[in-house]
Amino acid sequence: MIDTNISKDDKKFLKLALNLARRNVGLTGKNPSVGCIITLKDIIIGRGNTQPGGRPHAEIMAIKQASNHPLFRAKREIQDINVYITLEPCAHETTSPSCAKAIVNFGVNRVIYLATDPDQRTNGKGKSIMEKAGIECIETRIYERENSDVLKGYLKQKKTGLPYITLKIGSSINGKIATKNGESKWITNSLCRKRVQLLRSENDGILIGKNSIFADNPRLNLRDQYESIENKPIFILDTNLEISGLGNLAIFDNVGKDKVRIITNKDLKDNVTKRHKFFKGVSIEKVSKEQRFLNMQEILKIVSRMGVNRLLVEGGARVWTSFLKTGLFDEIVIFTGNKVINGSAISCFNDFLPLDARLGDFPNLTLTSLLRWKDNIEAKWIANS
Amino acid sequence: MIDTNISKDDKKFLKLALNLARRNVGLTGKNPSVGCIITLKDIIIGRGNTQPGGRPHAEIMAIKQASNHPLFRAKREIQDINVYITLEPCAHETTSPSCAKAIVNFGVNRVIYLATDPDQRTNGKGKSIMEKAGIECIETRIYERENSDVLKGYLKQKKTGLPYITLKIGSSINGKIATKNGESKWITNSLCRKRVQLLRSENDGILIGKNSIFADNPRLNLRDQYESIENKPIFILDTNLEISGLGNLAIFDNVGKDKVRIITNKDLKDNVTKRHKFFKGVSIEKVSKEQRFLNMQEILKIVSRMGVNRLLVEGGARVWTSFLKTGLFDEIVIFTGNKVINGSAISCFNDFLPLDARLGDFPNLTLTSLLRWKDNIEAKWIANS
Repeated sequence: MIDTNISKDDKKFLKLALNLARRNVGLTGKNPSVGCIITLKDIIIGRGNTQPGGRPHAEIMAIKQASNHPLFRAKREIQDINVYITLEPCAHETTSPSCAKAIVNFGVNRVIYLATDPDQRTNGKGKSIMEKAGIECIETRIYERENSDVLKGYLKQKKTGLPYITLKIGSSINGKIATKNGESKWITNSLCRKRVQLLRSENDGILIGKNSIFADNPRLNLRDQYESIENKPIFILDTNLEISGLGNLAIFDNVGKDKVRIITNKDLKDNVTKRHKFFKGVSIEKVSKEQRFLNMQEILKIVSRMGVNRLLVEGGARVWTSFLKTGLFDEIVIFTGNKVINGSAISCFNDFLPLDARLGDFPNLTLTSLLRWKDNIEAKWIANS
Repeated sequence: MIDTNISKDDKKFLKLALNLARRNVGLTGKNPSVGCIITLKDIIIGRGNTQPGGRPHAEIMAIKQASNHPLFRAKREIQDINVYITLEPCAHETTSPSCAKAIVNFGVNRVIYLATDPDQRTNGKGKSIMEKAGIECIETRIYERENSDVLKGYLKQKKTGLPYITLKIGSSINGKIATKNGESKWITNSLCRKRVQLLRSENDGILIGKNSIFADNPRLNLRDQYESIENKPIFILDTNLEISGLGNLAIFDNVGKDKVRIITNKDLKDNVTKRHKFFKGVSIEKVSKEQRFLNMQEILKIVSRMGVNRLLVEGGARVWTSFLKTGLFDEIVIFTGNKVINGSAISCFNDFLPLDARLGDFPNLTLTSLLRWKDNIEAKWIANS
């Protein structure tokens, strides 16, 4: 059954499951971040979410907690037990039994979940396993928007083989990301910079252009309240491997060489990549070059192969522009600082359509979030597909 | 007494007076838009606001209404009557008695107002007149921010001899006001364009550059629900009087030639201005030229002389930039549409500081309002003085 009328209590428990799922966004690797609530006579006896790295799954965590709950131990009545999950439980066995089987083994009356798993190994099979065991299964569309936001990286990766891509921009009131001399610290305020930390924590990887590394020497690590989270893999686009000429970079001290992949072009001679001891410990990947740009599809395959479902693109203008040019982006988050800057300063985007393009040719985006941080603004714009 | 504790009812009546004042912003010419409430035993018996054109004043309107109120006619007890005004009543007599005297003649117990009139003919004298007649006068600072917003044009004009200046910009997400070919219709949505009508109605005059007239041939009139409001005087900046070469303009059909003033440079030979019959009915004003720009102080003197306390600057980039360059602006209202446009498209600002200016040299503005209109954004930024 889909979209059956469900009770107020059911909604409440689904919302709690969703909140649990949200907590580990960006931490579960290739796996979706899922939340699970188990109730006995409408009392919560188990809570779980996908653990960092992707396992154990949310259902296993919740079952483990429920099994030890005094109420469950005292009067275990299968017809009183409901399970609320943000995604259909998996049907595939790896090292442990599938979540669908684990639920059957635990013994429950009803399972309500928010979305079918697009993974071909599950996709309705989780439901079948449970229904065959006599469990009532309900899929509902409530909280679809919120849950899609939690699952967007996983869903896009399953659907297209590409990560969900967020361009993150910090600009002046008039769309400039740095002065003519490249000075950009700080165009936005400290609250926005904390929000960038949150964005990094919610993504699985960070992509940045060589020019931004040159101009800003950024650390790209997780700081402040996100310090305990493992740093994300970094992908540096560097068509001609010019970065090799640099001294030590802040990124290596803060994120570590093992986390960094430099993506360069196939035609580059091997001796260029081998010449610099500097690169010891840093992976170098090669993709084709088209005109002056690295092939974006090939880049994103590499990113996906690394288990990145959500990719944060931190700039600069040349990199953001290639995403606009190829249309391979999903959303743009713009932090607008409270300065106006010279018109000849550095713009966030270069040209991505022909010079004679009409106004109607340029893409319309959808504004999905508008936040104010003192004198700064954070706006999230979604690409219309 | 200033900032005395006033009652909850007093606050309520002051807020109502403020709402009345707000209604006629942009309609009262050189005069401030003021609101007035008269109560008898805390029952409202008179309401008034400054009438279009600036007279009668709010107090006179409220007294007139109160005089005819049945309650006032039945049991007129001076000690029960209070007056609430958003500005100190005027002390200067023109054709009619001053508002201060009118209040004395009407007979009241107490007058509470929100601000001292900076006009030297009043400035405390209104209060004196009333106090001498035994009326208790209270000036309070509550609603100071809201009232300053209503009075900002009047206050700035009195303080500096210059109008309060709002730069109004419609731009893409990345700060572009038109494509490279000058196409700008429409970068923002219809809700934003309605808000522009509101802005026009709240201002006393509109200033625009010749380039914008060339590119957009705008109507610049008041439309839709603002249709009944008299159109505002238009000031066109045209350094070399190039506009004379144009055919008929939409502005003349919609606003009328008598409302239009073209501001050009002093050194221009007389025969250039006389040559074109086209200008019949249009005033031409001349100011000095400094380097490539018309002298902004002289322009604003002309604007002020026309009774404009609030000036809306509708563009384009060259004009907005001269306001940034001279620092002679008070706020920027930016409507952000939901498009991203090529980097080489037309920017809202050109350079206004030297090319080697540091990030810290550029002005920080204060965000005072952030509104969402479907997929568009309206942000108001105030210049820090």
